[in-house]
Amino acid sequence: MRMTQLLVPTVKETPADAQVVSHQLMIRAGLIRKVAAGIYTYLPLGVRAMRKFENILREELNRAGCQEVVMPVVQPGELWQQSGRWDQMGPEMLRFKDRKGTDYAFSPTAEEVITALVRDEVKSYRELPKNLFQIQTKFRDEIRPRFGLMRGREFTMKDGYSFDVDDAAALKTYDGMYDAYTRIFRRCALKFRAVEADTGNIGGSRSHEFQVLASSGEDAIVACDALDYAANVEKAMVSRIEMAPHDKLQAPATPERVPTPGKKTCEDVAKHLGLDASHTLKAVLYLVDGQLWMVLVPGHRETNEIKVKGTLKGQLIRVAESAEIASAGLVEGYMGPHALSDTARKSVKVLLDQTVANLAPGERPWVTGGNQADTHFVGVRVGTHFTPDAVGDVLTAREGDTVERNGKSGTYQAFRGIEVGHVFFLGTKYSAPMKCNYLDAQGAEKAMVMGCYGVGVGRTVAAAIEQNHDADGIIWPMPLAPYHAVVLPLGNEPEILAAAQKIYDALNALGVEVVLDDREERPGVKFKDADLIGFPIRVGVGKKGLKDGNAEIKLRTGKDLELVKVDDVAARVRALVDEGLRIA
Amino acid sequence: MRMTQLLVPTVKETPADAQVVSHQLMIRAGLIRKVAAGIYTYLPLGVRAMRKFENILREELNRAGCQEVVMPVVQPGELWQQSGRWDQMGPEMLRFKDRKGTDYAFSPTAEEVITALVRDEVKSYRELPKNLFQIQTKFRDEIRPRFGLMRGREFTMKDGYSFDVDDAAALKTYDGMYDAYTRIFRRCALKFRAVEADTGNIGGSRSHEFQVLASSGEDAIVACDALDYAANVEKAMVSRIEMAPHDKLQAPATPERVPTPGKKTCEDVAKHLGLDASHTLKAVLYLVDGQLWMVLVPGHRETNEIKVKGTLKGQLIRVAESAEIASAGLVEGYMGPHALSDTARKSVKVLLDQTVANLAPGERPWVTGGNQADTHFVGVRVGTHFTPDAVGDVLTAREGDTVERNGKSGTYQAFRGIEVGHVFFLGTKYSAPMKCNYLDAQGAEKAMVMGCYGVGVGRTVAAAIEQNHDADGIIWPMPLAPYHAVVLPLGNEPEILAAAQKIYDALNALGVEVVLDDREERPGVKFKDADLIGFPIRVGVGKKGLKDGNAEIKLRTGKDLELVKVDDVAARVRALVDEGLRIA
Repeated sequence: MRMTQLLVPTVKETPADAQVVSHQLMIRAGLIRKVAAGIYTYLPLGVRAMRKFENILREELNRAGCQEVVMPVVQPGELWQQSGRWDQMGPEMLRFKDRKGTDYAFSPTAEEVITALVRDEVKSYRELPKNLFQIQTKFRDEIRPRFGLMRGREFTMKDGYSFDVDDAAALKTYDGMYDAYTRIFRRCALKFRAVEADTGNIGGSRSHEFQVLASSGEDAIVACDALDYAANVEKAMVSRIEMAPHDKLQAPATPERVPTPGKKTCEDVAKHLGLDASHTLKAVLYLVDGQLWMVLVPGHRETNEIKVKGTLKGQLIRVAESAEIASAGLVEGYMGPHALSDTARKSVKVLLDQTVANLAPGERPWVTGGNQADTHFVGVRVGTHFTPDAVGDVLTAREGDTVERNGKSGTYQAFRGIEVGHVFFLGTKYSAPMKCNYLDAQGAEKAMVMGCYGVGVGRTVAAAIEQNHDADGIIWPMPLAPYHAVVLPLGNEPEILAAAQKIYDALNALGVEVVLDDREERPGVKFKDADLIGFPIRVGVGKKGLKDGNAEIKLRTGKDLELVKVDDVAARVRALVDEGLRIA
Repeated sequence: MRMTQLLVPTVKETPADAQVVSHQLMIRAGLIRKVAAGIYTYLPLGVRAMRKFENILREELNRAGCQEVVMPVVQPGELWQQSGRWDQMGPEMLRFKDRKGTDYAFSPTAEEVITALVRDEVKSYRELPKNLFQIQTKFRDEIRPRFGLMRGREFTMKDGYSFDVDDAAALKTYDGMYDAYTRIFRRCALKFRAVEADTGNIGGSRSHEFQVLASSGEDAIVACDALDYAANVEKAMVSRIEMAPHDKLQAPATPERVPTPGKKTCEDVAKHLGLDASHTLKAVLYLVDGQLWMVLVPGHRETNEIKVKGTLKGQLIRVAESAEIASAGLVEGYMGPHALSDTARKSVKVLLDQTVANLAPGERPWVTGGNQADTHFVGVRVGTHFTPDAVGDVLTAREGDTVERNGKSGTYQAFRGIEVGHVFFLGTKYSAPMKCNYLDAQGAEKAMVMGCYGVGVGRTVAAAIEQNHDADGIIWPMPLAPYHAVVLPLGNEPEILAAAQKIYDALNALGVEVVLDDREERPGVKFKDADLIGFPIRVGVGKKGLKDGNAEIKLRTGKDLELVKVDDVAARVRALVDEGLRIA
């Protein structure tokens, strides 16, 4: 492809409304253009990167036994009513009426349509499992669309749905999809982690997020290589954490009330007492399905609402308000599990984090709230001075925390990630209400067991840029690069143009996807654009090199120039492309 | 692919709501399923046929120098206001508001978005031409969606748009797209014609439709092979037509009024007088931009409103109503150009078809309306007894008509066709109002000259079925076939299953797209489904043949069985596939 033929409107200035690097670079390198808030046109280079990824998705999903379908984006409201989601979905679901006044939604996802299809077309256990996917346009009417393709309104998603006879078969399918996703992102040459995730409102009981690692990522995750386990910090299991040694704490044998005027945070209290925050217990009051729970974690850590909800198997959860704290007989800023008032004893239950409970009973005396203004207790021992109503894993994980699993233990490293894929075990959440049943071998009617599997196409391309860029522009991983290489004639002399053309023709003949920058621009402009666009391989053809019959090959990932004879350039570039496409 | 893994819900019964063969067969062969009126899910076989065609589109458009973009389906109403089409488009355009109350349309086409993009990103003649296309979901809210994918509401369309510096360059681009379209449909192995078409409301001055030929086609077209010219009957040029010899007409030298009581049609009048309808002149009164025109064609033919409009360069045209005929001093059913009343002479102009005008003056005396109730004239001669105000090509073409062009002449054959593609020369219809300008070499600002180019993806697949089917099912042209071949084990004996598996593996190894029908079904069911689905090649593996080490190969297009040694089947099938993919 000749640069003059391509529509690649590169721009020097960083667009004012682009806050994240991938958004900035996708605009600057001419990959996308905004049409409206959260709505973009993909220009030729953007389309090529998207198509590369879509093809990887298709190949790996076909290999995993999935079949491609295409469901409509305009979906009857009636189907969403059958699943009960017509009323549950908020204003993010774009709804409209057709000319006859019938309700429709612009597909934000497709559980309803696929479940209705399989319900109508698959009747027997002999026809199961079925594993169907589509790569299709979606719309979510985000209140504040931002970050370019990261949180757009109209976007392309690969969404897949599986149907099995029972939980065991569905979990096997789930594992197969986990493996397929692992292959997909490995083939993209991206650094990523599959992390255990909260199942949230979509329901279901098993869930992994595929996170592309990037320092700009929205999601905090921790991973333990020894256990081959990774999870969102809000989900990651924590068995033990670092705490300041307690022999520094000269604690009395029985709790002693000490004045801590105006000291309401664990940090402040510890400092005031000459201690470390990890010597204190932090108490946060939650209202869980109408019951007040005082949740306790070491004072240098944070309680985690999602974990609390999971531990208590709650449905509705929120932090209690000041008035609720007061009327429960507690004092805000001075709450503790020891010496509760009668009112508090009746209305409040205590949930203790397992990193505290797991310590030998009484081993560590704690500083806790005094349940009176401006006082705390020192020397409070678990089991002796208070007994929790429940124990659970309720703190947010951190780098350095210890996790124990299957008899092994290890420590966490922290990463930031961008969620690009998600696998969900759905169970019968949709098949039961929508009556997506099959007849088993005995002729009994049973609900199919479902899974769902999503990948954001544009989001993955954007995440690849977040992970792979520098101050000059994009550094495309070879498998997603819109083109593998660019040939730059560095001057207008006939011998330069002829050599560049020769190399360009030879590269095309070897199947290298190559752009010839045939614009009448100075070498500096061409170099800058090549770096901005991020071609993995750059071939420079200049007067100086040609004197010795050479062209220069440079990788976007490095700084070195390799001098190669003009006739050998194509073979050398082909080898570099193959190396870049090899699966790690 | 194993049949048990595929989702191919074949059905025996013809669906009640499917009126055309392609719709019936796409349902019966398990290619599509209805989700709502005019809205379908594409099942795996349907998706594969669509993707085959999309890939042919991509390859040929890339070869022609086009670049792929993807524009959003949710388009700001503001852009449609800029072009003026927000008010012009009827209820077929689906409109809605987002959560902030902003107007949007579901893209029925994308002239506005692409014109705004090129306006903003392309500034200089040096960057032109640009030729962009997308393959994207569209929606048109048809009042009566029908015929399956033929006239659905949600559909996939390839829409392309070109931008040039001037008319000459744009027409060159147009010709290139015409050639690309010819290659595209040739590669699909479809019988088709490129026909000159009316430019209709979309505007522009040059237009060709690509019509897939099928007896069930909606469109009537005529083609002259000698002139390599084809056109919609409403557009096709007609120079001469067959008429009954006029020496049978004993006409008086001056017009003579004869009684024709109650005879209002040319057929009736001719019969009444013992003549042929082609001895009469049919008069139809049109109101064209406020002027009444009496349009005259030979009585055995039909006036054509589109041609009348074109001849008179009219904007608004319709047939006059009874009251208008009367107040123009004419008598309905007895209108003629001779002996007009004074009122008629003042208010009505006469437009004569050129097949009449081209005859030698006075050569043929005509029967015309008497301009009084229940009478006609015989012996009316052009030039002598009336003189037309205009002459033009205003009748609907038919098989057998003669066309003259560039000094050559030929006769028409008639076909029925399904419009699957359309190329349009748009001129500055969109670039002028939307200010899509460029700077020429002298620094002057000029509007770009545009073309637009559409192909219905699902429509082409449906048209391929309309053209290629029999009573048993689809007969896929090889290039569009979801799979090239099917292997049928005809029995459950281990040696049959082993041989079928061996052939299946060998076919896969040679890159043949093949389905193994591994269902536990009787041979009769497998044969029926294979024919219904329309695999181009069927390989039967049965006990009888295996005795001699043979399998049977049968083409869907023929009846003969070819016996081939099991080890040779794959190579033979591969050769048949290659033959089917060769471009005619």
